Amino acid sequence: MKKNKGRVTLPSQQNFLKETKELMERWGADALRDSDGTKLDDELKRLDAAIYTTYFVARSHNEFAEQHPEEMQQLYLMSKYNTAADKELTISFLDGYFEEQVEADYIHDPKSWWEVIDRTTGKVVDPEFWEVKREENCLVITNAVPWHEYTVSFLSYMKWDPTQMYNHITNNWGNKPHEIPFDIRQPHSNQFIKEYLQKWLKENPDTDVVRFTTFFYHFTLIFNSLGKEKFVDWFGYGASVSVAALEAFAKEKGYRLRPEDIVDQGYYNSTFRTPSKAYLDYMDFIQRFVVSEIRELVDAVHGHDKEAMMFLGDNWIGAEPYGEYFRETGLDAVVGSVGDGTTLRMIADIPHVKYTEGRFLPYFFPDTFYEGNDPVVEAEENWLTARRALLRKPLDRIGYGGYLSLACKFPAFVDYVEKVTDEFRCIHDTIHHVKPYTGLKVAVLNAWGKLRTWQTHMVAHGKYYQQTYSYQGILEALSGSAVDVIFLSFDDVKESGIPEGVDVLINAGDAGTAFSGGENWLDESLTSKIREWVYKGGGLIGIGEPSACHHQGRFFQLADILGVDKELGFSLSTNKYFTESVHAHFITENMTAYDFGESKDNIYALKEDTDILKYSNGSVHLSSSPYGEGRGVYIAGLPYSHENTDLLIRALFYAANKESEYKVWHASNPHCEVHAYPDIKKYAIVNNSKETQVTLVYDGTGASCEVTLGPGELKWEDSANEG
Amino acid sequence: MKKNKGRVTLPSQQNFLKETKELMERWGADALRDSDGTKLDDELKRLDAAIYTTYFVARSHNEFAEQHPEEMQQLYLMSKYNTAADKELTISFLDGYFEEQVEADYIHDPKSWWEVIDRTTGKVVDPEFWEVKREENCLVITNAVPWHEYTVSFLSYMKWDPTQMYNHITNNWGNKPHEIPFDIRQPHSNQFIKEYLQKWLKENPDTDVVRFTTFFYHFTLIFNSLGKEKFVDWFGYGASVSVAALEAFAKEKGYRLRPEDIVDQGYYNSTFRTPSKAYLDYMDFIQRFVVSEIRELVDAVHGHDKEAMMFLGDNWIGAEPYGEYFRETGLDAVVGSVGDGTTLRMIADIPHVKYTEGRFLPYFFPDTFYEGNDPVVEAEENWLTARRALLRKPLDRIGYGGYLSLACKFPAFVDYVEKVTDEFRCIHDTIHHVKPYTGLKVAVLNAWGKLRTWQTHMVAHGKYYQQTYSYQGILEALSGSAVDVIFLSFDDVKESGIPEGVDVLINAGDAGTAFSGGENWLDESLTSKIREWVYKGGGLIGIGEPSACHHQGRFFQLADILGVDKELGFSLSTNKYFTESVHAHFITENMTAYDFGESKDNIYALKEDTDILKYSNGSVHLSSSPYGEGRGVYIAGLPYSHENTDLLIRALFYAANKESEYKVWHASNPHCEVHAYPDIKKYAIVNNSKETQVTLVYDGTGASCEVTLGPGELKWEDSANEG
Repeated sequence: MKKNKGRVTLPSQQNFLKETKELMERWGADALRDSDGTKLDDELKRLDAAIYTTYFVARSHNEFAEQHPEEMQQLYLMSKYNTAADKELTISFLDGYFEEQVEADYIHDPKSWWEVIDRTTGKVVDPEFWEVKREENCLVITNAVPWHEYTVSFLSYMKWDPTQMYNHITNNWGNKPHEIPFDIRQPHSNQFIKEYLQKWLKENPDTDVVRFTTFFYHFTLIFNSLGKEKFVDWFGYGASVSVAALEAFAKEKGYRLRPEDIVDQGYYNSTFRTPSKAYLDYMDFIQRFVVSEIRELVDAVHGHDKEAMMFLGDNWIGAEPYGEYFRETGLDAVVGSVGDGTTLRMIADIPHVKYTEGRFLPYFFPDTFYEGNDPVVEAEENWLTARRALLRKPLDRIGYGGYLSLACKFPAFVDYVEKVTDEFRCIHDTIHHVKPYTGLKVAVLNAWGKLRTWQTHMVAHGKYYQQTYSYQGILEALSGSAVDVIFLSFDDVKESGIPEGVDVLINAGDAGTAFSGGENWLDESLTSKIREWVYKGGGLIGIGEPSACHHQGRFFQLADILGVDKELGFSLSTNKYFTESVHAHFITENMTAYDFGESKDNIYALKEDTDILKYSNGSVHLSSSPYGEGRGVYIAGLPYSHENTDLLIRALFYAANKESEYKVWHASNPHCEVHAYPDIKKYAIVNNSKETQVTLVYDGTGASCEVTLGPGELKWEDSANEG
Repeated sequence: MKKNKGRVTLPSQQNFLKETKELMERWGADALRDSDGTKLDDELKRLDAAIYTTYFVARSHNEFAEQHPEEMQQLYLMSKYNTAADKELTISFLDGYFEEQVEADYIHDPKSWWEVIDRTTGKVVDPEFWEVKREENCLVITNAVPWHEYTVSFLSYMKWDPTQMYNHITNNWGNKPHEIPFDIRQPHSNQFIKEYLQKWLKENPDTDVVRFTTFFYHFTLIFNSLGKEKFVDWFGYGASVSVAALEAFAKEKGYRLRPEDIVDQGYYNSTFRTPSKAYLDYMDFIQRFVVSEIRELVDAVHGHDKEAMMFLGDNWIGAEPYGEYFRETGLDAVVGSVGDGTTLRMIADIPHVKYTEGRFLPYFFPDTFYEGNDPVVEAEENWLTARRALLRKPLDRIGYGGYLSLACKFPAFVDYVEKVTDEFRCIHDTIHHVKPYTGLKVAVLNAWGKLRTWQTHMVAHGKYYQQTYSYQGILEALSGSAVDVIFLSFDDVKESGIPEGVDVLINAGDAGTAFSGGENWLDESLTSKIREWVYKGGGLIGIGEPSACHHQGRFFQLADILGVDKELGFSLSTNKYFTESVHAHFITENMTAYDFGESKDNIYALKEDTDILKYSNGSVHLSSSPYGEGRGVYIAGLPYSHENTDLLIRALFYAANKESEYKVWHASNPHCEVHAYPDIKKYAIVNNSKETQVTLVYDGTGASCEVTLGPGELKWEDSANEG
């Protein structure tokens, strides 16, 4: 396809005009952005490019913030566990926290806003029996029960913006002032934020796009007393709390929250916790408030004929793009960081905005761009991983971050990005207006549903966790596969059943987590609706510990569908007869080696008609089971790989009873994929690997032919039929 | 030591006089026994030996049993799970059971004695809404909730004694009649049993010892429709139930049991289930009844100047030797099968009897005694494993089982047993009256306590389970170590605290099981008592998932003592800082390789002062932690090996804060051990391996010297001090 231009954003910096122009030309960039630490000079701003300017709403204004310490962001924090050895117990509740980040809130009466809990019994200690010693930052319980453990949930002020704190400490910014975050819910802050934006908009006529980084409430990020990360939850509402918010909540929802509703035994309602009613109410309350405040800012931006873009991260709490109220923000665009196919889809699928933009890796930072290192390696991995998702749902723009001057020193990198940007534009221009062929519709079922679209099993954005990679592989596989994907909550199913058109439900996660579902599985309306649906022809894939909640002799509440359950030790007396694997099965037709990641032990087949596909170390790792007209499939874990993607897709077609459609549009080599666009009579064949691959390609007509693809090659073909 | 005689029992058989005499001479046997399938002839009975005769109380009398089918043993059984697809659901409740073993009880009204349970909700279905169709052995529910699962708990008759059934099927006994078990609680059976015994005692004047095999109620052993084992619980009270028993229970205890109290969601109150109050009451009820009935039989035996010996197994339910009423049986002896050190101690430690006897392996059966095989291999393993336990607490007698004629054909085996019997007598004669030196007192803490002395984590006697070997190694290690061992229940601790003199508590098991403790850990009186005790200097060793019950932000309720907890996914947002192992530690001083068996994942150190001793694959496998004056130690699993025995003993001394006493009496080589008997100023040095070993031996005075021991050698030494 011919060379074209646009849809690419570059970072730039001062005194870098010539090189910027050259790279804009080669990469076809049509927008320039500043970064945290870089500014664009006027000459740059006069280039033929849209200018993005980073804008901080609730920090970076210490001149204001210092005058209103009572309007700082707040946090509910929980102390360490303290064991009473006596009736009197002194708790240094700030122990373990970073004194440069947090301080106790003594403005509001601790007796009203704090909670001391006997963690041995779970009971709240009457405030009559404890006193706070402010000078020593400690709390003394006077009627402790010896040998019980106690915690203090206390309200604190957060006096350092977590992102700036992270950058400051990581980059040794020394004396650079700590940016104080302030709370838009407070009167002075609210007024300041709005007035300042008006002023800024006037003073920045060259800015075309206001890149909000981000809005009001930072995800929860707390450091320890050594200035190292202590707690991080990319979804956490911890820093949205305040006395004003709690009062407003009570008024709006008709009941008061307890500190424990936020502190949650020290789990702080992590996204892995099955959310409580109170926490869901609180999220709803914050989202409504955040969205209405964003709307005012967006209206101001629009009033100056600029566009409003939201960065997906940092202070994004309450502004979740898949939230119920997001449409009402009026935002023009969302930009986010693309680490893989999943994060690409998380951005690309965002509804209600004019365009989405993905920031690709690597950042132009010295940790990658140093002499002797080849940044193309990371760039290629990032591109090949993300591209398959792009072929399902393209972003509207891509971009890069960091110091352009660093990238310039690596000509091979510049060449590679030139190729990437061209390929991106080609993909976008070809398919952005058409729906790709999908063989199946899949619903990922968990406690969060739509709100956490492409965001399951995530702790800190982009960070690896041993406990999650075996599940994250599911979304990564789906992100670039020829299936429709929706995210469904247990409540959705309880209220409305499984939506029309869904072929397969996936429930995946560790027992008790929001992703497996915990006590949701005790609700008969959930299990009954799923049983009926599968019985009548639906498919259920359970991964890890699906539907797990020990009750009435079962651990997996849908063991009857899955055909397997987990031995907890209670049924060791019952012989487990079924340990033989079947010889041939559709799901494993291509498999030679298996990788279930962290996997699960002690899974056994319940029924004679459970087909065991992989059994080792005394446990079933892969199996299928008939259930009425439908089917259940169990997988012990699914880390991402090309082979596991094929395994999952086969399992989906099998569960859906549509094996015959598996090869309609298909590449036989798991490193390759076919994406078909019947509406425009085109299809793309991609090699997702860095090696040359030979594959049979099935072209939708039933015919197949052998194709050879170079490393990472993408081939466009015209198709005869319309799929 | 000089050759001596006695304390050995041989099996014999008809027409085998000469060889029997010869072997009696060589092995120093002073007793002869028959077996299931062999009889002793008169000439044998006239030898200078005590005669043991196997006696079946509640089977082997079909001439009686067939006349009283209504007095057959009963069982509560649970059907499979059945999913309703409609309002009407038909359940073939016998599906999966062995029709030659069980049949439904239609004598008593199902509406009164059966229970239909909606397993989706846990609710009982009103009998008004179901009917039994007797001809078809099925039950029809008429108001089922579609897509709920249902089970039927039904009363059945057991028409084939499980042990005879097992032998019959295994050995293809063809037309041999099936022995019908009858219930001593029923009037005709009770009378028959007692009259028959009187008659038999008169007719068997040559019998010196009546070897009861065993009494009334067989442990639960149920076969499937193919005649294979379906359910086995060596501790199970399943076959002690009857309408008469349930009526008597209600009268004695003041409340009625539900079928579910016995069926227990299909777990049938396996020993891995934390026992319910109802089940404990039922056990108590059965034990009292069984013991009083045994007493009558024992009195009859004594009335004929014979001894009464109980076989530890088969129909032993209600006659548990560590039960509260066992003393009242008046039994003279218990004999049981010795598979290892644990089972040896289980027999040797039995209180209130005049003597104990262990049947050693291998049985003289063709599966071991066939041409080309060397039975000495198994005999040597059995002896070396059991001997270390014998050196702690000797049995009074040993014996063998099977066909003596088979053993005779293996001269090397005859030689080896000659050596074993001599060594056994030497050990017994030397130490049976003295208490060996012990460095520590250890209490194994679980839901069962004393009742299951040396019987934790056992499903079927002597059978390997992947889920249990990592815990059974603890008892096996302890069985032959220089420590006192007691078994303590949670109720013991709640009521009376930790007994005086205990140095270390061990809590070991998978979460939720009776051995870990499940919801017992929510009882603050348990955790508080242990915390206080450790804080003041006690030691706690947790193995696997100790004190596990998710509550108030902790999984391990004693995480504060253990210094570790398990990540369930809820606290992934909290950084886990402590992953570095300490360089040197008392516990791991000798360790070069580690084997935690099935081990546990996701264990993390909670506190800075937790010493991590072994960390791999993202998880702590071995650690210690200070707690006040005391210490906690965590071990991820402890399968039996000589090295793990040393590891456990070191962990015990460390937890007890008595490291300095570890080497008082000690062999530096983990394959060797020293057993000291200060009262008689002797000590034994043993090589527990089949290879020559060199070891430093510490002799109680602080001095040590190097000793070389041949394969399996036992050396007696005189000691200077009294320890």
